[in-house]
Amino acid sequence: MNVTLALDVGGTHMRVAVFHENQNKPSHQERIRTYADGETSLDRLISLIKQVSPPEYRIQSIGIAVPGTIDPQRNIILTAPNLPDWAGVPIVDILKSEFGAPTVMGNDANMAAVGEWRYGAGQGYHHVLYLTISTGIGGGIICGDQLLVGAQGLAGELGHVTILPDGPVCSCGHTGHLEGIASGPGISAYVAEQLQSGRISILQGKPDAKTISQAAKDGDVLAKEAFERAGYYLGLMIANYLMIFNPSIVILGGGVTQSGDLLLEPVRKQVQKSVISEDYIRDLVITRAALGDDAGLFGALAFARNLVQPG
Amino acid sequence: MNVTLALDVGGTHMRVAVFHENQNKPSHQERIRTYADGETSLDRLISLIKQVSPPEYRIQSIGIAVPGTIDPQRNIILTAPNLPDWAGVPIVDILKSEFGAPTVMGNDANMAAVGEWRYGAGQGYHHVLYLTISTGIGGGIICGDQLLVGAQGLAGELGHVTILPDGPVCSCGHTGHLEGIASGPGISAYVAEQLQSGRISILQGKPDAKTISQAAKDGDVLAKEAFERAGYYLGLMIANYLMIFNPSIVILGGGVTQSGDLLLEPVRKQVQKSVISEDYIRDLVITRAALGDDAGLFGALAFARNLVQPG
Repeated sequence: MNVTLALDVGGTHMRVAVFHENQNKPSHQERIRTYADGETSLDRLISLIKQVSPPEYRIQSIGIAVPGTIDPQRNIILTAPNLPDWAGVPIVDILKSEFGAPTVMGNDANMAAVGEWRYGAGQGYHHVLYLTISTGIGGGIICGDQLLVGAQGLAGELGHVTILPDGPVCSCGHTGHLEGIASGPGISAYVAEQLQSGRISILQGKPDAKTISQAAKDGDVLAKEAFERAGYYLGLMIANYLMIFNPSIVILGGGVTQSGDLLLEPVRKQVQKSVISEDYIRDLVITRAALGDDAGLFGALAFARNLVQPG
Repeated sequence: MNVTLALDVGGTHMRVAVFHENQNKPSHQERIRTYADGETSLDRLISLIKQVSPPEYRIQSIGIAVPGTIDPQRNIILTAPNLPDWAGVPIVDILKSEFGAPTVMGNDANMAAVGEWRYGAGQGYHHVLYLTISTGIGGGIICGDQLLVGAQGLAGELGHVTILPDGPVCSCGHTGHLEGIASGPGISAYVAEQLQSGRISILQGKPDAKTISQAAKDGDVLAKEAFERAGYYLGLMIANYLMIFNPSIVILGGGVTQSGDLLLEPVRKQVQKSVISEDYIRDLVITRAALGDDAGLFGALAFARNLVQPG
């Protein structure tokens, strides 16, 4: 029985999915906590793989998505704030020798982009911009059927870009980044700041983006404004990305996009206003991601199946 | 005698250079005005080619750089503000049938990027960011040895990106674009505005970037400040491009870069401040372009010689 394994490792959980040959639905999935007392996370991962792949399975290849920056030449994690014990460890080589199967590793946001491209909302497109908007903002770019990784595998940090110099402080410490403004915490911080300055709203304290989204749907003016503001800057930056990459589809994923048109309407409006020519948007699709939390897993599958050329 | 012809067509002049096989120096160059009474610019181009390629020459291929956006599938110019009569004309097919040689056409800023990459400051690099800063700001990106062109050939508009929402108005009519701030006219407009508001300076009226550069070298505070401001925003945006593309070299060309360290020092300073990790700049080269006005011509040569894969 030939199988491909797709792994998605996060700071709190890790998942594995087993795909039989020519199947795009996993035959089996498991999800466990990344860390537990008395075991290393790598040992836990290896046990997890053994658990889902009995001896009669022939593992053809393994793809693994990790939340960090990866050196594509040496195939190791350079930095991974949520997975500190993995930095510098030759994960790929370890899995290769443990399971005797070709193994590929990628950054989880890049992998999610690839997942959406090969198995989700981006199927059939050759130039894809993928953004995930949740606690952070990340993404990935497919140009001419190649995943853009850059000289050291550090490309695609699409949220850590300045769009408002002297704007709010981002999780990374810099000011004016898209992530600092339009991520969940960015939206939340704006509302908290406005409440503190005495704005009237049904919201209180420092509500999260989901609560703000609900308040906006209930007609709260400040809550609506918070999403319009996030959508405005997202739209500005997406328009920038259109000038830079000229993609044929923009896919928006991540928890914050579950607010739907509340965010997407101001995004579309601003993109339309900000492009320098109609040519950039005439045939452009702007859509929500299709795979939800599985995007990274499917990206790992695509990598493992050799469907991706990093460029 | 096998030759390759490289053409660079601009709104005021057009140039042709003849390259013998395996030679990277032109054996001959001509430059004429693009427009003249009683002739179309296309007829002038065809005469120019005939003039430099006597019957004993066998034209192996032709590369042509044009100041416009190009549909890479149909191989025609979509828009060319400085060459309005060329939009929609099948230039490539006309030259092919006239001279019986494979002909390729590209956007001049993209071509200049390719020229610097294959024959100039970027030789040997695989991930190149090229920016040209003069009357406008344009550029080109090489990712993994491929020129990024995008879905409709519109990628690489690296100057028409918002870096300061509500900032000054750009040549394209939008506000806050890098070009509106850091191009020659952007620097000039800032100085003019400051002079009008009563700032003291040796400058008067609406000086051009070259005059401002000289004044800065003579110690004028406003002139220095104007370049620092341009360098700050250029640096911010270049840092964005590092996050986005992770290039190994940044090449800066165009007239405004002739001001040298006056512009480049604040650029380097801001890039260093703005990257989210040292990894982006540890091995990064930021350098001035090597080919000057010939970059587009050499890009056309590289295209004609099939040294470029658009991606």
